[in-house]
Amino acid sequence: MSKKPLILVTNDDGITAPGIRTLIRIMNSIGDVIVVAPDSPQSGMGHAITVNDTLFVRKESIDNGPQQEYSTSGTPADCIKLAKHEILERIPDLCVSGINHGSNASINVIYSGTMSAAIEAGIEGIPAIGFSLCDYSYEACFKPFESYVKSIVLNTLKHGLKKGVVLNVNFPKVDKEDIKGVKVCRQSNANWVEKFDKRINPQGKDYYWLTGEFVNFDKGEDTDQWALENGYVSIVPVQFDLTAYKSIDDIKQWKFNG
Amino acid sequence: MSKKPLILVTNDDGITAPGIRTLIRIMNSIGDVIVVAPDSPQSGMGHAITVNDTLFVRKESIDNGPQQEYSTSGTPADCIKLAKHEILERIPDLCVSGINHGSNASINVIYSGTMSAAIEAGIEGIPAIGFSLCDYSYEACFKPFESYVKSIVLNTLKHGLKKGVVLNVNFPKVDKEDIKGVKVCRQSNANWVEKFDKRINPQGKDYYWLTGEFVNFDKGEDTDQWALENGYVSIVPVQFDLTAYKSIDDIKQWKFNG
Repeated sequence: MSKKPLILVTNDDGITAPGIRTLIRIMNSIGDVIVVAPDSPQSGMGHAITVNDTLFVRKESIDNGPQQEYSTSGTPADCIKLAKHEILERIPDLCVSGINHGSNASINVIYSGTMSAAIEAGIEGIPAIGFSLCDYSYEACFKPFESYVKSIVLNTLKHGLKKGVVLNVNFPKVDKEDIKGVKVCRQSNANWVEKFDKRINPQGKDYYWLTGEFVNFDKGEDTDQWALENGYVSIVPVQFDLTAYKSIDDIKQWKFNG
Repeated sequence: MSKKPLILVTNDDGITAPGIRTLIRIMNSIGDVIVVAPDSPQSGMGHAITVNDTLFVRKESIDNGPQQEYSTSGTPADCIKLAKHEILERIPDLCVSGINHGSNASINVIYSGTMSAAIEAGIEGIPAIGFSLCDYSYEACFKPFESYVKSIVLNTLKHGLKKGVVLNVNFPKVDKEDIKGVKVCRQSNANWVEKFDKRINPQGKDYYWLTGEFVNFDKGEDTDQWALENGYVSIVPVQFDLTAYKSIDDIKQWKFNG
């Protein structure tokens, strides 16, 4: 019987995206790999799950690697649920999601399908890491970061993660020789300042495209955004207990009438 | 000029759902109301945003109330962005989302379109509350909770909320006389134990429906789930800084090779 760790791989850019193909190749050097990923891009899906539609699963063979692969018609969070309940024969030792084509640092964690898959795995009790590169291009170069992916995965397998915690790893868009190292950070207080591009369709009806500019309001040097802007790989431990504990006592003072 | 607060109302069950119609009516007794809500149900959409599709907005007139109403083709989070940037002339004093037909207590906050709208408003700097009733029925009875909605809204307008905090309010499915009061709580450590209902379509292909059972692993009496099971209205202050601060120092001890 194999002593190698069982690693579940997923993403939100779809099963054929270069980012997940890179991640699969790296994971094949560490463990037994099963891929369960969306059959089409799911960016911006947040933690969506499919409750009002059917889900399809298809066995895939995309390259010559030793991994087993399945595509699904669902979201990244659906992929984790389907993997755990319908595809995998045992709980995996690790789930990795990505490598996302584009940043999931700062507030992007909230909108991220990549991170929602990692969080869903965490909810299911599986140690999990989301990887993202700050380059939205389909042709983004993942090569400089491969050794970091491997090192972060090996550390996670060795040390484990606290219950209720998953990792949000982002890579700066720099050349290998310009990577300064790894920083463990907090989520930066940054934000999208949206702009809608308003247009008129051929029938004369207004419609909108969502666009926006990312603005970092946080001057701290302990944030993921600072790390990335300064050439570091950022790791933010992320939790899914959203309770704002510090506000509980304040709100307990309020007087409610029923 | 009106001195009344400007209140933005949205939901994830769609603009015609009984829950939002109830919420609009209550808000009309407190302030000037603008509704920007999805034109169709969006349950389970999590914090999805629409980045790869167009967005449409339509002026609506659904009942005889004084509110202004707009439906959009987007998700609950899209509704908040569209409201702020394209519809409202000033920043609202409050955003309320719901009343959801179904619980958003415990881990449901992660999957909830209702709460993603409130969180999106919070990110935009607007005090926000998501309201949900632990009854999934379209015919759910909201009447017993109307005075609580009003009281929680008035308290929030009076006291304000800390930056980065929004409220997740859930109502138990009980009669008015059985409501025990209001509890300010933490998010319960509960979970969905999924089951997939596997079927075969007319073309002979397997497909799945996601189903599941909600299981509360948390024995604490300070949780939202405990409060609801014991007849209390639960209020959890929710934050969108997901950093697991307690894990930062642990992970800083790891040795990374680049």
